[in-house]
Amino acid sequence: MTDLVLASSSPRRKELLKQLGLDFDIIPSNIKETLKGETPGEMVKNLAMDKAMSVLPRVDRGKIIIGADTIVYMDGCIMGKPKDEGDAFSMLRKLSGRTHEVYTGLAVVNTTNSAVLLDYECTQVLMKDLTDKDIINYIKTGESKDKAGAYAIQGKGSLIVKSIKGCYYNIVGLPIGKLRDMLLNWDLDLLVMGR
Amino acid sequence: MTDLVLASSSPRRKELLKQLGLDFDIIPSNIKETLKGETPGEMVKNLAMDKAMSVLPRVDRGKIIIGADTIVYMDGCIMGKPKDEGDAFSMLRKLSGRTHEVYTGLAVVNTTNSAVLLDYECTQVLMKDLTDKDIINYIKTGESKDKAGAYAIQGKGSLIVKSIKGCYYNIVGLPIGKLRDMLLNWDLDLLVMGR
Repeated sequence: MTDLVLASSSPRRKELLKQLGLDFDIIPSNIKETLKGETPGEMVKNLAMDKAMSVLPRVDRGKIIIGADTIVYMDGCIMGKPKDEGDAFSMLRKLSGRTHEVYTGLAVVNTTNSAVLLDYECTQVLMKDLTDKDIINYIKTGESKDKAGAYAIQGKGSLIVKSIKGCYYNIVGLPIGKLRDMLLNWDLDLLVMGR
Repeated sequence: MTDLVLASSSPRRKELLKQLGLDFDIIPSNIKETLKGETPGEMVKNLAMDKAMSVLPRVDRGKIIIGADTIVYMDGCIMGKPKDEGDAFSMLRKLSGRTHEVYTGLAVVNTTNSAVLLDYECTQVLMKDLTDKDIINYIKTGESKDKAGAYAIQGKGSLIVKSIKGCYYNIVGLPIGKLRDMLLNWDLDLLVMGR
């Protein structure tokens, strides 16, 4: 029996691990999120690592910590969470009718032997052509708040996305297929863990 | 206020409409499912239509009926629901490491004026390379039962899929982005309907 610790307060990540029937604790990282690195992949890996390491002092030996960070990337720029509704509008206007990329970095730390696994996943997302009215109606749902790129694919955001290429769960915020592959390096298989 | 009727007993389809905050009734079609048509797209459209029409006599005038049918397609063959665990094993063995297609047909019937909207969505799914042990462990989760192609992407099946191309919700069984586009023809917008 391995105890997992999710170093994130994201309700989406929590929901995905619960959906797999896994037992885990949540210890949010509460660090100041600073992006470092040359490429989006490097940046999300570094920040995922920072998050995982920041909870290490608060975790019992023997546990496995999972850190994750998700960003939206288009035209060489990173889109974070919108500051307000005007910011959300301008982000969705930019994304409309075009393809952007969602990156999630994953850092897994074994507190017993300090071993680390580090990787990331990238998924392409093609947004539908959105009218100003569509964008306003979407922002009214309240989903834009606190989401990188101002949308949530698992909510009403499902109605404004045309298609994706890659891992869907990466867009939600936790690429669980990639996480399974990483943990298999330590002979831990998410497919048989939990209920 | 428009009342929607879902002509399907699928818990996945019900869950997706609920997630959008929609009000709807469920009236399962209970027809014998017979595939007719020359192409997978034709087949799922025809069966979605049969399902929607079969509940018509049981639906009050003024409602809008949604029929849907999902199949898995590979190498020119349709994969239905597995008969037993041996059948599930052989399906997953075939899908392993390769790309297959998931088709969902959508039929929308307006009971007020008998107008009909008919379309389908197709998504490509690349399965991870699966060992026999992976397949056996996956079948043990019980998810293979009653699923076309013997897997469910929204459950532990998320761990055995490598990537997808197209609409994720189509694989779950109801392409809600496509459904919104169809209903917009009647000036009904799922983005603003419901709570």
